[in-house]
Amino acid sequence: MKLSEIGEFGLIDRFSPPFLRDLPRAVVGIGDDAAIIERSADEALLVTIDTLVEEIHFVRAKTTPRDLGEKSLAVNLSDIAAMGGTPTSAFLALGLPPDTPVEWIDQLFEGLHGLCRRESVPLLGGDTTRSPGPILITITVLGSIVPRNIKRRSSARPGDVLCVTGTLGDSGGGLRVMLQDLTLGEDERSLLERHCRPQAHLAEGRWLGAQPDVHAMMDVSDGIDSDIRHIMRQSRCGARIALERLPVSRELRGAAGRHGWDLIELMMTGGEDYCLLLTVDPSAMSAVGRAFARDFGRELSVIGSITAEEGRLELLRDGQPALLHQHGFDHFLGRGV
Amino acid sequence: MKLSEIGEFGLIDRFSPPFLRDLPRAVVGIGDDAAIIERSADEALLVTIDTLVEEIHFVRAKTTPRDLGEKSLAVNLSDIAAMGGTPTSAFLALGLPPDTPVEWIDQLFEGLHGLCRRESVPLLGGDTTRSPGPILITITVLGSIVPRNIKRRSSARPGDVLCVTGTLGDSGGGLRVMLQDLTLGEDERSLLERHCRPQAHLAEGRWLGAQPDVHAMMDVSDGIDSDIRHIMRQSRCGARIALERLPVSRELRGAAGRHGWDLIELMMTGGEDYCLLLTVDPSAMSAVGRAFARDFGRELSVIGSITAEEGRLELLRDGQPALLHQHGFDHFLGRGV
Repeated sequence: MKLSEIGEFGLIDRFSPPFLRDLPRAVVGIGDDAAIIERSADEALLVTIDTLVEEIHFVRAKTTPRDLGEKSLAVNLSDIAAMGGTPTSAFLALGLPPDTPVEWIDQLFEGLHGLCRRESVPLLGGDTTRSPGPILITITVLGSIVPRNIKRRSSARPGDVLCVTGTLGDSGGGLRVMLQDLTLGEDERSLLERHCRPQAHLAEGRWLGAQPDVHAMMDVSDGIDSDIRHIMRQSRCGARIALERLPVSRELRGAAGRHGWDLIELMMTGGEDYCLLLTVDPSAMSAVGRAFARDFGRELSVIGSITAEEGRLELLRDGQPALLHQHGFDHFLGRGV
Repeated sequence: MKLSEIGEFGLIDRFSPPFLRDLPRAVVGIGDDAAIIERSADEALLVTIDTLVEEIHFVRAKTTPRDLGEKSLAVNLSDIAAMGGTPTSAFLALGLPPDTPVEWIDQLFEGLHGLCRRESVPLLGGDTTRSPGPILITITVLGSIVPRNIKRRSSARPGDVLCVTGTLGDSGGGLRVMLQDLTLGEDERSLLERHCRPQAHLAEGRWLGAQPDVHAMMDVSDGIDSDIRHIMRQSRCGARIALERLPVSRELRGAAGRHGWDLIELMMTGGEDYCLLLTVDPSAMSAVGRAFARDFGRELSVIGSITAEEGRLELLRDGQPALLHQHGFDHFLGRGV
């Protein structure tokens, strides 16, 4: 049997059980955005690791090394944000083919270093190695959090309101702009920037971590269609998403209109938005939403709710079940939607 | 300019300075076996990251996935041992081509999990991704240590005695057995085992960490010819190595005799021994050596001393300067030996 037959999540299910059985108390392993190691009542350590591989996660000719250096750290910072924590240090494992131009590497480090400084996350160590082909960038980020502020994927409750902290689909739109070499108008340029230089929602994550009425949280990396299923599975619940409420940027709407893109598909499956997906106690939603808008100057977007029907994802458009294959969602049909 | 023109250490020198300038107090970054984050007078956190890349660090057809899983963790545990610490948790980033057989991956995880259990180092998280070609294994290990027990590369002092905790060259011999498909007698089998299943000297590292008279320490990964230069550079000193005192195993001596290998070359440059290289206060050497022999049932091997001549590595054989090119060491000559 090949790996391609069981897929990433099949693989994780396959190897995780023996490791999960070994866990010490006060430790949460595999299954959330970051591992949690509680050290005292006042502090837990968060740890995350993520890899970018050339040809899989990026194309060298289509990205600047500076953006790549920044993005390789940003995706890890986003995992710490998703727990409600603060990143404290970073570690890099870099695999490079011997013919890589030194100037290219210099710019990769400039991008990485710039984000390290802006977020006060020192790079404390690493490993450089030769690669027989693709450029390989693995980053580990440590973070810190007060244990009571930790937001997990497994804490959603039926009735919770489902929210996101930013617009969806911009990064997916930017990827299309990049891969199809579209002419860069103002909208396209903005989407490309969203794709190449994702911003981890660190301040939002810390703020939401401190709200007791925020129950579950994770970051939007694969697209909410895929990401919400992690919350559903780990919280043993279902979810209902109102497609017309998905927050769309002016730039994405403009570009989608010009290029004939399916907006809903991009927002649901584009991925790499790196905003946060969270669930809020319904009785506190309006207060949390008002406070968020006051502190961040933009809406916390309500996109649906958590239901008690374990494993069932309902997509609605104006209250009616959405016929998803009309939106290019054929790959959903096998999943019982 | 290509990366191959400046090499790994050139690259590290090139990118490190801006990151080192950013370091907070009580943190030691880039330049030792692991980064050190002091958390209190009683505890520091150690962090290390290491990558094994197919074709560079291993050949799939020549290693079992079980050994590979174990080795990918062992090399990281060795970095924690080298600081005098105790490993506490591990994190895995795994890149696999889609056609990897699931059974192969199962065995990789069995090897990894076996060592996790034996050393009580839980695997707490990870990231699996597709690879366009080579198998990629990056592991981060966290460790813990009492700050006063930390042994760094930069603490060697002129006059210190230079020691190693195990025999040298066995792994290099095993690599030759593997690559040349040599017939497996008892010696060859043992060397192959040393290469494929390196044992991190964790108990030795912790023990030596607790000895105030042990000054500098690191693990032997590239071979002591290369590794000692890190101690020399970071401690601003020189070193003298008595080649006839390098500890050799019965198995390596036997195989080297049969296959015409240059023993000294293998012991100096074979690498991947993963024993510890350390410096000891000369006034305490005999007491430390006796106590080590009592607790571990084998010698702490004295192989030379630290000198005040910054950057100068002297190799002696029976007290006479060794003419290294006679031992196949031509690549040394450019280094002023």
